[in-house]
Amino acid sequence: MKKIGVALLGLGVVGGGTYEILTTKREYIKENDGLDIEVKAVLERNLDRVRELGIDEALVAKDIDEIVSNPDIHVVAEFFGGVEPARSFLIKALENGKSIVTANKEMFSKSWKDLEEAGKKGNAGLYFEASCVGGVPIIRTLTDAMQGNKMTSLKGIVNGTTNYILSRMSDEGVDYNTCLKSAQDLGYAEANPTADVDGFDSMYKNSILSSLAYKKRVPLDKIYREGISSVDVRDLEIGKELGYTMKLLAISKDDGKMTEARVHPAFLPAEHPLSAVKGSFNAVFIHGDNVDDVMLYGRGAGSLPTGSAIVSDIVFAGKNTTHRRFAFEDVEVDDSSFATDFITEYYLRFAVSNQGEALSKITALIEDNGVSVERAMTKGDDVIVVTSKSNESKMQAIVRVIERLSAVDCLGALVRIER
Amino acid sequence: MKKIGVALLGLGVVGGGTYEILTTKREYIKENDGLDIEVKAVLERNLDRVRELGIDEALVAKDIDEIVSNPDIHVVAEFFGGVEPARSFLIKALENGKSIVTANKEMFSKSWKDLEEAGKKGNAGLYFEASCVGGVPIIRTLTDAMQGNKMTSLKGIVNGTTNYILSRMSDEGVDYNTCLKSAQDLGYAEANPTADVDGFDSMYKNSILSSLAYKKRVPLDKIYREGISSVDVRDLEIGKELGYTMKLLAISKDDGKMTEARVHPAFLPAEHPLSAVKGSFNAVFIHGDNVDDVMLYGRGAGSLPTGSAIVSDIVFAGKNTTHRRFAFEDVEVDDSSFATDFITEYYLRFAVSNQGEALSKITALIEDNGVSVERAMTKGDDVIVVTSKSNESKMQAIVRVIERLSAVDCLGALVRIER
Repeated sequence: MKKIGVALLGLGVVGGGTYEILTTKREYIKENDGLDIEVKAVLERNLDRVRELGIDEALVAKDIDEIVSNPDIHVVAEFFGGVEPARSFLIKALENGKSIVTANKEMFSKSWKDLEEAGKKGNAGLYFEASCVGGVPIIRTLTDAMQGNKMTSLKGIVNGTTNYILSRMSDEGVDYNTCLKSAQDLGYAEANPTADVDGFDSMYKNSILSSLAYKKRVPLDKIYREGISSVDVRDLEIGKELGYTMKLLAISKDDGKMTEARVHPAFLPAEHPLSAVKGSFNAVFIHGDNVDDVMLYGRGAGSLPTGSAIVSDIVFAGKNTTHRRFAFEDVEVDDSSFATDFITEYYLRFAVSNQGEALSKITALIEDNGVSVERAMTKGDDVIVVTSKSNESKMQAIVRVIERLSAVDCLGALVRIER
Repeated sequence: MKKIGVALLGLGVVGGGTYEILTTKREYIKENDGLDIEVKAVLERNLDRVRELGIDEALVAKDIDEIVSNPDIHVVAEFFGGVEPARSFLIKALENGKSIVTANKEMFSKSWKDLEEAGKKGNAGLYFEASCVGGVPIIRTLTDAMQGNKMTSLKGIVNGTTNYILSRMSDEGVDYNTCLKSAQDLGYAEANPTADVDGFDSMYKNSILSSLAYKKRVPLDKIYREGISSVDVRDLEIGKELGYTMKLLAISKDDGKMTEARVHPAFLPAEHPLSAVKGSFNAVFIHGDNVDDVMLYGRGAGSLPTGSAIVSDIVFAGKNTTHRRFAFEDVEVDDSSFATDFITEYYLRFAVSNQGEALSKITALIEDNGVSVERAMTKGDDVIVVTSKSNESKMQAIVRVIERLSAVDCLGALVRIER
């Protein structure tokens, strides 16, 4: 039986989950996949954690060089998070012929090109199923199930923390700060929640998934990003009355020439399958020209669900004799093939001082600019307008003009509507 | 570049879709997967269809022997449907070293063991992603993404025809026969709809998916089967009031020792993700001990979605130098490891002649037999009861006793409730 030696870099939540699965499922994987996978080394300073997991202290490596020079190690799985030292360590591993497995979306989305190069040099593979949507095989689907499709769009709830917060705000009518606090208390959000609530995490994942979908590097600086920290619970409630559910979405589209990619809170029709994705669950909707819509749903985080994807990748990395190369990572990014603007429908809420005339003036201004108004209503001191499709830049310009109307105080909310 | 020759057996809906994708995506697949896939032969008597698809008539083979003896053909994709001659032709292909690709769930579920043997003999692979849930990569997920999981349950809407009929019945309050007729008019149901509406199609798929999930042969005769032809629209309406949606489900569970598998209409809570799967869409919910719940959703049928899965399998079959073997197909089925009974909750409707006392007598009888009544109500001439969990055999026995009550005319409906 083929023996695969694994090194685990870091024994945090997912590192620990991975060790647990590799241990409890060792015989099962031998039986079903014909691989004997053994943890041969760990890189972890916290010896209490090593002991807590029941790992032999003799396996603790003194540094990355000890790991990459060990011929019994074939796969290096990384759980540090953050860009460095993960990036340098994994490049070393690849150059030394060790395939890498990682859940680190920030590092991966920022370093894919360099990792690819190192992998080519060392004839080793890059495996990152766990970097997007935990245990859900979205990467496998894009790389190994859609070969006969030109993918045209992707839309996903790829961050559990923000989905938990928005679900609670919507279900219980509680404001953002209260929900964030409770997410932090429950361990769903970090003490510094920026990566999640400001959409960075979703942006990293959007970059990875869109690159795979369109076979084209979609760099972070081409992705529009907006988080949920200024979402007003009032708009979730009004949205609900109008038949919408608010989600933080990672969206991208590609028509074969131009690509657009963005992360922002958006309204979805309540009957859209993504609207039913609640709490810390994640889901990704993809559209291919032949397969039509496909959705994958599951746990986007957690030690065992993410560990499950890591272990699947270790099996893949161990079985494969030739490793998949991502050729698009070699191609220079062509700036002109990325949209700087996008088209969508809009929900607008304005605080107004003169309810008598505000609605008609606002809607007239929108229609004068060639955008249809689908719905308009006065609600207390606010005017709500739902528009048909418009360019984002045009809508922003219209909003600036509306804000100068004497009957209008300011923009209360602008939420894009996706279908 | 590696050249892969393909033979298409039959040019029906999916065969035609596959030819279309292989033609339009030939360059795309060359570029991304490094394979040049060419259709080298077709086996189709209808020459009009051959011309309609723009296929060179010189590619029409005179028989299967011409195909299996052609060294330029590496993969044989089958679109006949039905057991014979598909089965014999594919066994011949495998024995001659041609990998097979099929969407034929009936043939595959009935012949897997023999195909496996032939594949071993000829060192060729079995690829059947398209046999279950069209373009949705559920087979890929079970074989290549869950290696670190013991799967414990599976629950799916795997037949589009019945889901279309039940969705229409539920949305429009129209009876079964009217909906079946309109499904037939729209081409969603066959003139002879038995395979779909009586649950055979779902049973075949349940056998394939459950075998893969539990790595254990789950033969057709171990699967309880009940179709939708006697579903009364009234129960969909009452169910809706109670917060349930009715779906024809393929269900299986495995605790490591015992397996149960069944196909029948069932109520799901309206908030269950499967309840939102409407019309001809399909979805499968799987549960692994580490990954937790995962759901895959998409088009379960149609020329291009199913063709998309066929093409993905052709790419796989063409790339793989060693083919996956399904060792469990060699193992004799151990009858004692299959449950002959199952446990679930029940919705019961009885037609009664004496509304005054029927409800109390029915509920008393149920509770006397050790099953709790969660809800009971009188509705016109009917009494509706929702129970807690019970063995199916016990519940059937209770129902027989209730039917003998003088206040009760007969059982109107028995619907299992799943969560």
